[in-house]
Amino acid sequence: MSASAAQRATESTSMPASDRVRLRRIPDRGHHDRSTIDAIIDASMFGTVAFSYEGQPYALPTNIWREGDRLYWHASRGSRMVRATIGAPVCVSVFLVDQLVLGRSAMHHSVNYRSVVVLGTGHLVTDPAEVEASLEALIESLYPGRWAQLRPMSDKERKQTAVMYVDLDEASAKIRDTGVGDDPGDETWPAWGGVIPVRQVLGIPEPDAFVPSGVVPPDLRPR
Amino acid sequence: MSASAAQRATESTSMPASDRVRLRRIPDRGHHDRSTIDAIIDASMFGTVAFSYEGQPYALPTNIWREGDRLYWHASRGSRMVRATIGAPVCVSVFLVDQLVLGRSAMHHSVNYRSVVVLGTGHLVTDPAEVEASLEALIESLYPGRWAQLRPMSDKERKQTAVMYVDLDEASAKIRDTGVGDDPGDETWPAWGGVIPVRQVLGIPEPDAFVPSGVVPPDLRPR
Repeated sequence: MSASAAQRATESTSMPASDRVRLRRIPDRGHHDRSTIDAIIDASMFGTVAFSYEGQPYALPTNIWREGDRLYWHASRGSRMVRATIGAPVCVSVFLVDQLVLGRSAMHHSVNYRSVVVLGTGHLVTDPAEVEASLEALIESLYPGRWAQLRPMSDKERKQTAVMYVDLDEASAKIRDTGVGDDPGDETWPAWGGVIPVRQVLGIPEPDAFVPSGVVPPDLRPR
Repeated sequence: MSASAAQRATESTSMPASDRVRLRRIPDRGHHDRSTIDAIIDASMFGTVAFSYEGQPYALPTNIWREGDRLYWHASRGSRMVRATIGAPVCVSVFLVDQLVLGRSAMHHSVNYRSVVVLGTGHLVTDPAEVEASLEALIESLYPGRWAQLRPMSDKERKQTAVMYVDLDEASAKIRDTGVGDDPGDETWPAWGGVIPVRQVLGIPEPDAFVPSGVVPPDLRPR
């Protein structure tokens, strides 16, 4: 968890786990405190928004960001995703992979990860000033300090963008962060066992043809 | 696309795009040919399975893998995810991020990515031999050659694991792989513009306490 994410994390509150988000299987991996949930969301650039449309579930990957007690995403006004999620039940999940876990049997291959699942109702931000403030929060969540450098938003742009959110009051986190859990007796099986770290890394920024000399890329928020 | 993924890719067939998976917004980004869809799935270790349960959509991240015309995932027998997806409409999405795209206005910040959305019906693999063959395909999709090194599966393990799949006959891919798309006139705005590569990388394998000397970690399949 980065320092900035820590600063932004809501004070830890233990939410009552609803039946729908309580971890039933391997409950030790479940977490319902907001500080854990917020930290995982704040470390995620992307998530998946699930909704139903004409009886068919959809899972669409998208940018997500958090402000206080809300988890946000955005889409084009008039898109099916927006029409299908306003006032409707939605689920947003995020998933960060930390390590691959290799045991000596197929069953004990696993992954160390941090995930959050949020259930709730999709809300559309309608006030143009609030739309702009939310998009500023998105840009700043990715590239601190960048908003002030950008060409200001136009009225038309504010109207084109649908900013959506779900409240964070029904959510759970799931974390696996242990080593190999082989069955007793399997440890001596002659296959390699252990973990392999997985990380998302950024490469060297590639400026387009119009960047004046001396203008440098933004620092990305550490995650 | 890795060589092995290319070998495993089904011969390119242009699927008729159903209304449910046809890309409406920015249709240039849409792809409906199986070779494109298969390559993105084969490059993905993880996906998100969406389903509905008691009127609530869920989006759960999980391992996914492909064999021929099927996209597979697995879960514990008796889990809610399995009960809710057998014979039910599901959606599985995968999402690979390649670059962050930074324009001079908020609206022209974007992401270069490859994604696939599959719609269909969840099927449970019931034949124990087929369960084992599918899990072998999963392990081999991650760690080529590893299956033969593992302690063989037990009958109990074959019964504990629910292997699920959806047919790949209603699917679409979406790809953004271009540069900054600033509005005319914005190019000279004095903010940095360009792309920042994003990659998932593996770290140095960390053996557990039981690995005999000379036993090396598996090579991971290139993606």
